[in-house]
Amino acid sequence: MSDSGPTSPVVLNRKEIEALAGLESDAFDPDAFAAGAFDAIAEGFVRLARGEVRQPPVLSLDLPEVAGELDVKTAWVRGWDSFCVKLSTGFFRNPELGLPSGSGLMVVLDATTGRPRAVLLDDGLLTDLRTAIAGGLAARALARPDATVAAVLGAGAQARWQARALAAVRPLSEIRIWSRRPDAATQCARDVERHTGVPTRSADSVAEALRGADVVVTTTPSQEPIVPAPLLQPGMHLTSMGSDGAGKRELEAALLRRADLIVVDHLEQSRTIGELQGIDANTVSAPVTLGEILAGERTGRHSDDDVTVCDLTGTGVQDSAIARWLLGRYEAHGAGS
Amino acid sequence: MSDSGPTSPVVLNRKEIEALAGLESDAFDPDAFAAGAFDAIAEGFVRLARGEVRQPPVLSLDLPEVAGELDVKTAWVRGWDSFCVKLSTGFFRNPELGLPSGSGLMVVLDATTGRPRAVLLDDGLLTDLRTAIAGGLAARALARPDATVAAVLGAGAQARWQARALAAVRPLSEIRIWSRRPDAATQCARDVERHTGVPTRSADSVAEALRGADVVVTTTPSQEPIVPAPLLQPGMHLTSMGSDGAGKRELEAALLRRADLIVVDHLEQSRTIGELQGIDANTVSAPVTLGEILAGERTGRHSDDDVTVCDLTGTGVQDSAIARWLLGRYEAHGAGS
Repeated sequence: MSDSGPTSPVVLNRKEIEALAGLESDAFDPDAFAAGAFDAIAEGFVRLARGEVRQPPVLSLDLPEVAGELDVKTAWVRGWDSFCVKLSTGFFRNPELGLPSGSGLMVVLDATTGRPRAVLLDDGLLTDLRTAIAGGLAARALARPDATVAAVLGAGAQARWQARALAAVRPLSEIRIWSRRPDAATQCARDVERHTGVPTRSADSVAEALRGADVVVTTTPSQEPIVPAPLLQPGMHLTSMGSDGAGKRELEAALLRRADLIVVDHLEQSRTIGELQGIDANTVSAPVTLGEILAGERTGRHSDDDVTVCDLTGTGVQDSAIARWLLGRYEAHGAGS
Repeated sequence: MSDSGPTSPVVLNRKEIEALAGLESDAFDPDAFAAGAFDAIAEGFVRLARGEVRQPPVLSLDLPEVAGELDVKTAWVRGWDSFCVKLSTGFFRNPELGLPSGSGLMVVLDATTGRPRAVLLDDGLLTDLRTAIAGGLAARALARPDATVAAVLGAGAQARWQARALAAVRPLSEIRIWSRRPDAATQCARDVERHTGVPTRSADSVAEALRGADVVVTTTPSQEPIVPAPLLQPGMHLTSMGSDGAGKRELEAALLRRADLIVVDHLEQSRTIGELQGIDANTVSAPVTLGEILAGERTGRHSDDDVTVCDLTGTGVQDSAIARWLLGRYEAHGAGS
């Protein structure tokens, strides 16, 4: 690519982004995992709660002819020097071609001039990371400080990512993985143990995975609840991050009714595409936003016995936060490759 | 940028795009101007008319805090191997910083897999070009074949582009430029003459510019009509391309009522953001789409005396068409730089 002058945006490919984010090796250091990105995303949630974010409706293109879909999201944050426009695609015949279904990229625009500052050809990596970090932030704010046993439901990419984020915020001694597909759970447990250094095993049932668990993350695309209310235990924290579309849900309504605290990343989204779909607001404790909790404006857990739930649907401000964080690392260190 | 494997998208900067589009020099050859791009965009309009295009609502982010705006458009066309997602920004304090208000880029996605095929860092160039070509296509289809005198209202970038597109489709002997700002008209006339080789002069009034003109293009952001109906002359063709937003209009309603043929690029847009805003459908001839005309499904001008009008609001399919055309040239010739 020839030079087109000083205003040319930076273009980073996936390898360069992995290196900048400190994700290029399997070696896992919980204290260094995505160092700084937790704070960057926490700031995004706080600003979202304070109404300092402009986030227009998602552009959605449905392509039933080719079993494909495109979403474009953006969020501008007052005072930040950049914001992100993220394209993400799901083309569900790709596996027949040996390709992953999903892909995507982020364009980072200057917040003052609108000019492109960077194109991040991350192929969805930064979305995985910002989603995992939201789970980590929820666990850090809401799980008992002495939480040591984690359960992850689902065995896909986010199951692995969420396990890493949990291991970064709590001194875990054990992780259990459950999936409808036992083979996938076994493989996922192996990967998670390698990534986190925490002893990890697959569980045969949701009940077995949750027995004695202090912190639970659900990462499935389920349209039926997979966590029934009777499996709740005093002091448990649950984060649901799989439900991000109309009709999806992972937690039983009765479970939500029994929770002492319900936290959401984005209240309207939680009601339209998250766990609060179809839930009568009078039957559950009034939801608090993760931003209010992280800002210290609202209290999280009041006692070791509280049951806390966090519903994450995914917000554009996380994209702008992770892109800004990554670009800051690039500017400080260079691509390093 | 290091290599990230065979699936890395092509990244082209503005210089490379200019070279691929044959726009790198001032030399103008009407037969070679954007060769192939006219056909590419004509095919897009035809497919739009045939209902073979999926075009979701535009994503719009308004940022009054920084006098900025972002639009994201996309259009998928059945049977095409790629489609475009275009970001365009207008940040109206940029001139204070010595920067143009507008910028943008296009991301080209594979239409079968959704994976990014190219990032075109064109900074708005391809939008200028596809907009000009739509004007050229309208004039080629609707102006009298022997049209030799052209008038362009407005003296911005599109005035220059539209003049080039007109010169590419009709054997012009004279071009007149009118602007509210006489100095701008003089400068624009100088540029247009240099670009097209056609004798070009500035006009002191719209009436002077239109007297004896065969083909007229309006390129202003006006919210009040600038072309009154009495200036119509038998046989004249007018293209309005400036009105592309709520409240904008360049042609008097009485002019539309007197036109023998009204052509639009996109009927719904013409009614919401174009010249048909607030026009009673019963008072004007039933609009025909440019795609129907270009497909030969509808007749354009019936006689040398017909007055024809074309309202262009801009469509996502033009973006997908120009990006696909440019990528085809890249694949055939390489970046050449």
